[in-house]
Amino acid sequence: MSGRRAVTVGIDLGGTSIRVGVYDRTMHLLASHAMPTRVSAGPQAAVDAMAAAIAMLLQQIGGLGVADVIGIGMGSPGPINLRTGVLGLLPNLHGWENFPLRDALAEAADAPVILESDANAAAIAEWKLGAGRASGLETMAMITLGTGVGSGLILDGKIWHGMFGMGGELGHTVVEPGGHQCGCGSRGCLEVYASANGLIRLARTIGARPEASEAMRTLTQGTASFMPLDVALLAEAGDRSALLAFEQLGQYLGMGLANLISTLDPPMIVVGGGVASAWPLFAPSMFASVRENSVVYRLVAPTQQTSLERDRTFIRPALLGPAAGLLGAGLLPHLAAPMGEDVSFASYIQESTR
Amino acid sequence: MSGRRAVTVGIDLGGTSIRVGVYDRTMHLLASHAMPTRVSAGPQAAVDAMAAAIAMLLQQIGGLGVADVIGIGMGSPGPINLRTGVLGLLPNLHGWENFPLRDALAEAADAPVILESDANAAAIAEWKLGAGRASGLETMAMITLGTGVGSGLILDGKIWHGMFGMGGELGHTVVEPGGHQCGCGSRGCLEVYASANGLIRLARTIGARPEASEAMRTLTQGTASFMPLDVALLAEAGDRSALLAFEQLGQYLGMGLANLISTLDPPMIVVGGGVASAWPLFAPSMFASVRENSVVYRLVAPTQQTSLERDRTFIRPALLGPAAGLLGAGLLPHLAAPMGEDVSFASYIQESTR
Repeated sequence: MSGRRAVTVGIDLGGTSIRVGVYDRTMHLLASHAMPTRVSAGPQAAVDAMAAAIAMLLQQIGGLGVADVIGIGMGSPGPINLRTGVLGLLPNLHGWENFPLRDALAEAADAPVILESDANAAAIAEWKLGAGRASGLETMAMITLGTGVGSGLILDGKIWHGMFGMGGELGHTVVEPGGHQCGCGSRGCLEVYASANGLIRLARTIGARPEASEAMRTLTQGTASFMPLDVALLAEAGDRSALLAFEQLGQYLGMGLANLISTLDPPMIVVGGGVASAWPLFAPSMFASVRENSVVYRLVAPTQQTSLERDRTFIRPALLGPAAGLLGAGLLPHLAAPMGEDVSFASYIQESTR
Repeated sequence: MSGRRAVTVGIDLGGTSIRVGVYDRTMHLLASHAMPTRVSAGPQAAVDAMAAAIAMLLQQIGGLGVADVIGIGMGSPGPINLRTGVLGLLPNLHGWENFPLRDALAEAADAPVILESDANAAAIAEWKLGAGRASGLETMAMITLGTGVGSGLILDGKIWHGMFGMGGELGHTVVEPGGHQCGCGSRGCLEVYASANGLIRLARTIGARPEASEAMRTLTQGTASFMPLDVALLAEAGDRSALLAFEQLGQYLGMGLANLISTLDPPMIVVGGGVASAWPLFAPSMFASVRENSVVYRLVAPTQQTSLERDRTFIRPALLGPAAGLLGAGLLPHLAAPMGEDVSFASYIQESTR
């Protein structure tokens, strides 16, 4: 297999971990590696660790080397300048701004690197292999509710980059003017409310109220930290205070999606990221908020949103889960370079759905 | 000239007036007609009046008939379903919803009709012949501050329509959650604050405060109605209360533009419509608000926005004034059908700038 350039590498760079995957030409994951993101060690140390992981994985697959790599796709937290491959001011990667991420990795790994925002990478995966794959749609927005809130826009079959690749930072649209301070410097960004950290803040505020449930007060007002999952488990058990936290998250998310719909009227919005797994908890208030805040969404009489035979923006949860970011990164080299005849994702789709 | 299909017709349908223009192939206005929009008489009466005006203008130009018309372009208030040519729920044209505007005019005038939102028509004119013409940009957003607030998006050289042609209703993105009721049914839409009616409301609220200037109180608290121009004249004379009204308008407008920039990162935004003529009065607070509310706009170090050699979204006033909507409507048939070799806008541009 050596010398046939038969694999792609995907890298999912996150605020807490870095995942590296090697994929064959039908997008099967051959091998992967995960490691913590040592933010304080700086970006060059992270790039060196990525290059070492790639070399190790290629070797472990069966003696592959860099000559077998079609390309390395990387999803990075935004904003990034995709024209230059340089990181912007990253709320979750303090001190990494202005680092030439793309060129540094290309040099360290000795292979071509295609850099995208992590949210764009996830959007590509959901579009080609996940929630959008059966739709035939050429336009789709994806919003990723993780540590932060990212978004990716596919418009007319292409990732929308804007001037510098910063297009699609829906997480930094303002849904609460004068609201809580965001890591980006603005106030009231969607990210402050609809991310994992946002849910924690909402839960803490609700838990501090006199009318809060005992369970919610215990969870949120102690000195121990808690996770979105803890709040979700309470909510699923019927705790009204925990349910309220997700209801509020849904209201803010719905405001952001309403503004996106009013601006672009996309046929589909896919909601992914860790927080999205709590879909049943926030979806009702999200849909109510979208209806309340977007005349474009309301314009057509409401119908049951259960199929693609829809008459307004179809808002649905993502299908691929946490794998989307890594998978999309691994897809990037295929999208950047025309694929050979022997490359087909059909087998991936068939195998993953049976 | 008869039989050569040498002219296009543009129609600008507004909440208060209907303008009809006949253009030659270099986009010179040959003849035009304006009449009030009799909203209560219903849409069919308006369509019949348009058809009569077209026939009259063609005759007056020199015995032209419908066979000389390449096509009729019409800009209509949105939201409209551009796939079907049917009007949506129009805040400024009560009772006209669900009217098949495109087909009705095509039948009455016996010519092909290309229907666009009025804001898209204005955006096309500014893109091809106005603020965008020397830029070479293929992506541009235009926001029109008139009776309402419309917007048009040109993305990668094409008008962005979304699912049903309702894409680009930036005027109905929410900039003040829970704010004033909008005609569309939502609360706090940009249109409620940055339109002519919005300015009137802002002025009235400011004029009612104890600290309001005497002139502003006199203007806004009487029984007589007043116009945005009245407020602008006070502001230009240095009245602090009148200046505050424009400052607030700029803040809301900046919020809407900030969210657009965070969502799409477009290289240029053109601000047009009647209210935009007060640019010097609201631009400072608008720019401050955009900076405050969009990390994508802030990401690059501020530079003087005086040329197209810019490093972030260039926000500038429109160039064509009130003519943009009609001119853009007249351009629509050219964009819809490939132009013959003898058609060139170059002469228009040269003549209009000398």
